[in-house]
Amino acid sequence: MESKRVGKRTVKLKNNPTIIEATSIVGPKEGKGPLKDYFDIILDDDLCGQKSWELAESKMIQTVLEETMKKASKTYQDIHYMIGGDLINQLVPSSFAARELQIPFLGIYGACSTMAEGMCLSSMLIDGGFADYILSCASSHYCTAERQFRYPLEFGNQKPMTAQWTVTGSGAVLISPNKIGPKIKYVTIGKVIDKGIKDGNNMGAAMAPAAVDTIYSYFEDTKDDPNSFDIIATGDLGVIGKQIAQDMLKEKGIDISNVYTDCGLEIFYLKEQDVHCGGSGCGCSASVFSGYIYKKLLKKEFNKVMLVSTGALLSPTSTLQKQTIPSVAHAVVIEND
Amino acid sequence: MESKRVGKRTVKLKNNPTIIEATSIVGPKEGKGPLKDYFDIILDDDLCGQKSWELAESKMIQTVLEETMKKASKTYQDIHYMIGGDLINQLVPSSFAARELQIPFLGIYGACSTMAEGMCLSSMLIDGGFADYILSCASSHYCTAERQFRYPLEFGNQKPMTAQWTVTGSGAVLISPNKIGPKIKYVTIGKVIDKGIKDGNNMGAAMAPAAVDTIYSYFEDTKDDPNSFDIIATGDLGVIGKQIAQDMLKEKGIDISNVYTDCGLEIFYLKEQDVHCGGSGCGCSASVFSGYIYKKLLKKEFNKVMLVSTGALLSPTSTLQKQTIPSVAHAVVIEND
Repeated sequence: MESKRVGKRTVKLKNNPTIIEATSIVGPKEGKGPLKDYFDIILDDDLCGQKSWELAESKMIQTVLEETMKKASKTYQDIHYMIGGDLINQLVPSSFAARELQIPFLGIYGACSTMAEGMCLSSMLIDGGFADYILSCASSHYCTAERQFRYPLEFGNQKPMTAQWTVTGSGAVLISPNKIGPKIKYVTIGKVIDKGIKDGNNMGAAMAPAAVDTIYSYFEDTKDDPNSFDIIATGDLGVIGKQIAQDMLKEKGIDISNVYTDCGLEIFYLKEQDVHCGGSGCGCSASVFSGYIYKKLLKKEFNKVMLVSTGALLSPTSTLQKQTIPSVAHAVVIEND
Repeated sequence: MESKRVGKRTVKLKNNPTIIEATSIVGPKEGKGPLKDYFDIILDDDLCGQKSWELAESKMIQTVLEETMKKASKTYQDIHYMIGGDLINQLVPSSFAARELQIPFLGIYGACSTMAEGMCLSSMLIDGGFADYILSCASSHYCTAERQFRYPLEFGNQKPMTAQWTVTGSGAVLISPNKIGPKIKYVTIGKVIDKGIKDGNNMGAAMAPAAVDTIYSYFEDTKDDPNSFDIIATGDLGVIGKQIAQDMLKEKGIDISNVYTDCGLEIFYLKEQDVHCGGSGCGCSASVFSGYIYKKLLKKEFNKVMLVSTGALLSPTSTLQKQTIPSVAHAVVIEND
């Protein structure tokens, strides 16, 4: 058996796990943002026809999975695994979607790093011959997340300007070996990094060091050139976290400033839409990747992309217990042939 | 690339992912149960020297991981991934343990199916050459779970006789390719199954159909003989769920009754320890596998084992919203050479 490891932390995929389809869905607010023309489905109503926000989030996940299979002319029986997760306690939205689809399900939790975590796992399992088709997905919903992590929506809490806005959105990708389409070439799994930030309203600052650790490891391992990328997208550090990540990487000798963006900045008009430091939530990088970035790859407007989804691994209980915020970031490198 | 799939749902591992070490830790109550001589570490105090139960659970995870590395003469730098999870919102115990260890971390959530989910993923990643050493772990703690899922402990709530008792325990395994020791030969990933049970105090009944679906799929795919196993252990269906699973499988033509046990029945003296239908929690099958079953494999008292960890994918919110309980079960088949 040949090792697929490159350097200390990175894996090189050799059997061309290909993203053969992708679908994005977003809520009404996200559908008025700068990426509105890239999303597959924009909801008129963030209840998505359901009785609760949790069921709405589950329905969104189900919708992107079904739409992805439809576009690829696949049925549930063709799909070997669904790998996905969300922010909600016990992953209820994803599990309930998996119940409807009857695809073997591997639940994952990486907070807002979930989309990249799922793509890393899926591409390795595809590369190793363990499955022919894997659906990987992630989601978040402003209303399920706010009431779980912060305050009841009815309370109308004011947020500090360092806070981010949880995206209502979901994204799914269908991965299969040796097909036509953008290929996942490398994955780098993140370590849990905690630099002592305690402010749950400044998660960009908490997560930036995790993104830096993962991005730096990739470049250390591969000796790749940041400027060979069309885009390096973290998700979601927001305004403050993005600046910190860029500065920290520069100090370590890696300058990504020419190609660097953050999914949380791309998805909203920050000032006009009053979202403070930008979007957040698993659904942010999931919908930005499955909508905007994937379509740009298909059009060959992007040919080499790094997605680095970042997650803050706190809980309301850990915050009450005065713990700091550990964070993690996973990287996926995708290229056109 | 050679496919490793067998039948519809099962994967055959060909590069001998080997469980080279395993460690179990349990709380004081579990340490007075029938498996007390098999556990590596029995806590005197379920706070484990920490200020909160959540930190205690995290410390338990860290302890089994560190002990496993020590026994295998490995350091953090040797371990490519840690794959694990627990029952607690946002996986805080596992994430905080991962923060201390600085091993790249993939968080998973499968409720009480987590141990098998982690072993499935780890063995596939090892088999595919993506890592040389993976630590896989799961945990639960009576005190963190009770207050999150049910009532404050101080309330002294009485449980119905169908309920199970969340195990305070954690287990970890270290997996590496082509080594001496018990090998993971097959994995079958579960579908999310929901037969409409709503009673969160009867989770065995909710989870049994998921266990049946996965066990049946394994035997369908491989044409293996149930009586070739020394033990088939679900975890944790308890008294009621175990009977349902055995009966349902018999109706489908698979008789596992000669070799069948449930980790939730093994870990406690049900009547004397007043645990109603038996143990539950990710830590139950994790500690029973890493303690009892693994040691029996090493002594060749068991030579072929199936671990089928089962998870109920409910949340307090889904229960309040009157949803039924979807469940999942993942199977790992382990053999001595």
